[in-house]
Amino acid sequence: MRAPGRLVSLKQPIFEIVTIGNEILIGKILNTNAHWLAKKITSFGGSVSRIIVVGDDVGNIVSVINDALGRRPDFVITIGGLGPTFDDKTLEAISKAFGKPLELNKQAYKLVKEKYLGYYETGLLKKFKLTPSRLKMAKLPAGAKPLYNPVGTAPGVLLEHKGTILISLPGVPKEMQSIFENHVATLVKRHTKNLFPCEESLRITGIVESEIAPLIDVVMRENPHVYIKSHPKAAEPTPLIELHFTATSDSEVLSKSRVKKAIESISGKIIKKGGAVELLPA
Amino acid sequence: MRAPGRLVSLKQPIFEIVTIGNEILIGKILNTNAHWLAKKITSFGGSVSRIIVVGDDVGNIVSVINDALGRRPDFVITIGGLGPTFDDKTLEAISKAFGKPLELNKQAYKLVKEKYLGYYETGLLKKFKLTPSRLKMAKLPAGAKPLYNPVGTAPGVLLEHKGTILISLPGVPKEMQSIFENHVATLVKRHTKNLFPCEESLRITGIVESEIAPLIDVVMRENPHVYIKSHPKAAEPTPLIELHFTATSDSEVLSKSRVKKAIESISGKIIKKGGAVELLPA
Repeated sequence: MRAPGRLVSLKQPIFEIVTIGNEILIGKILNTNAHWLAKKITSFGGSVSRIIVVGDDVGNIVSVINDALGRRPDFVITIGGLGPTFDDKTLEAISKAFGKPLELNKQAYKLVKEKYLGYYETGLLKKFKLTPSRLKMAKLPAGAKPLYNPVGTAPGVLLEHKGTILISLPGVPKEMQSIFENHVATLVKRHTKNLFPCEESLRITGIVESEIAPLIDVVMRENPHVYIKSHPKAAEPTPLIELHFTATSDSEVLSKSRVKKAIESISGKIIKKGGAVELLPA
Repeated sequence: MRAPGRLVSLKQPIFEIVTIGNEILIGKILNTNAHWLAKKITSFGGSVSRIIVVGDDVGNIVSVINDALGRRPDFVITIGGLGPTFDDKTLEAISKAFGKPLELNKQAYKLVKEKYLGYYETGLLKKFKLTPSRLKMAKLPAGAKPLYNPVGTAPGVLLEHKGTILISLPGVPKEMQSIFENHVATLVKRHTKNLFPCEESLRITGIVESEIAPLIDVVMRENPHVYIKSHPKAAEPTPLIELHFTATSDSEVLSKSRVKKAIESISGKIIKKGGAVELLPA
């Protein structure tokens, strides 16, 4: 969400999330990874402008990454496709998109080797051997930096390109989350420093969405720094709506007071129309 | 997933799904709509090549729709942004992307009017009035066809463009699902006639993913019409993997026998390596 006015001058950093994997496209699994990441980034004051899901096809991944880079976001974060199997094609695609050949990265090699030595020593593997499938996870595009994976094997990958930071995370949720928390969160916060997002939600009953619509228009015009989004929680004849308020500024007090003012204003108008309002817990 | 070989000659129709709504980009809600739709389309023999999430911004939606049309899929299905509030911008964006002005559609007007009359007669509304917010849902791009919404108010929208069918569905899950089932499913099936997808999943324990990787390579080479996807269900030291098999052909028997053959082949190889295999219920 790139909100109007003040936010732009505050340079809220823009993120695109690219989830890679046929399993999402065939409806086998829900894209919970992108959801987790979007929530984190938003809570740090960043703005996710797109989430794209693409299958395990090098050509399609290259095209998605090139399109994303062309929009010049501050960050592109890919999820999935870093593992040992043939359908893990993210690094091959990034290598092609950036024109940087895949090469055995010394640091990544050390990380992967230590992982398999560990699995061997604890008895998980009968033989210690760095097979081609395993070495694949240490072959990064030239100039990339591996990010240690505290939970699994495949390291994350960081690469910069003309002002955009590209980060690749594995698709196993715990691995993705731990690499993000350990290596990416600080980087993101450095880009969103001095930004304080505030979010609140109201549950509205007793009034249909088409009756609330003009009230939102008025309150948003009066509160240009607050974004109000209407979420019908049931089809229209059932009057159950959540209104979601967000404001981001360089002062926590300011963000909160702006949201509070908008909530008070719309609540008054809704109650006047016979609706009921309840502030939802954060 | 556009699988190799035979599938292409069978002209498996290609779908792109565009979910519109800031609520997904800020991580407030999970994209369960795209998941439901992708599963349905796959079960009918269609192939979803991309899922894109974009915010409630006309310029961004126009750009996403234009990019999707440029890839010439058979279908583009948008979800969300058809309602009465200011942030429901899908039709405005489609109008711009297609160069077709928004105009009051007679059939949509009738549908919307009848809905509000019904809400008024059953006492849900105190006054019957077609306010601008309500009429907005009946203003469609020229040449578009409304799709009756059996659950809520806003009709779905269908528009053809140079061989691509664009369908817009509302974001409330029950409304989206019912319009799809009532108006879109038959259309999709007409495009996927004579295609029979078969899917099976195996749960593998006792062997790590990097050890399974070369086995998948062999079995996929021997079974070129079967796509095998490896899903690590836990980070690598824990050996818990799901293998997912898919084949689509013009014969149900053929699709099933192809998947069966690939499953038997890989199961033998995994058991030989000390792993255990269990067929998961469909």
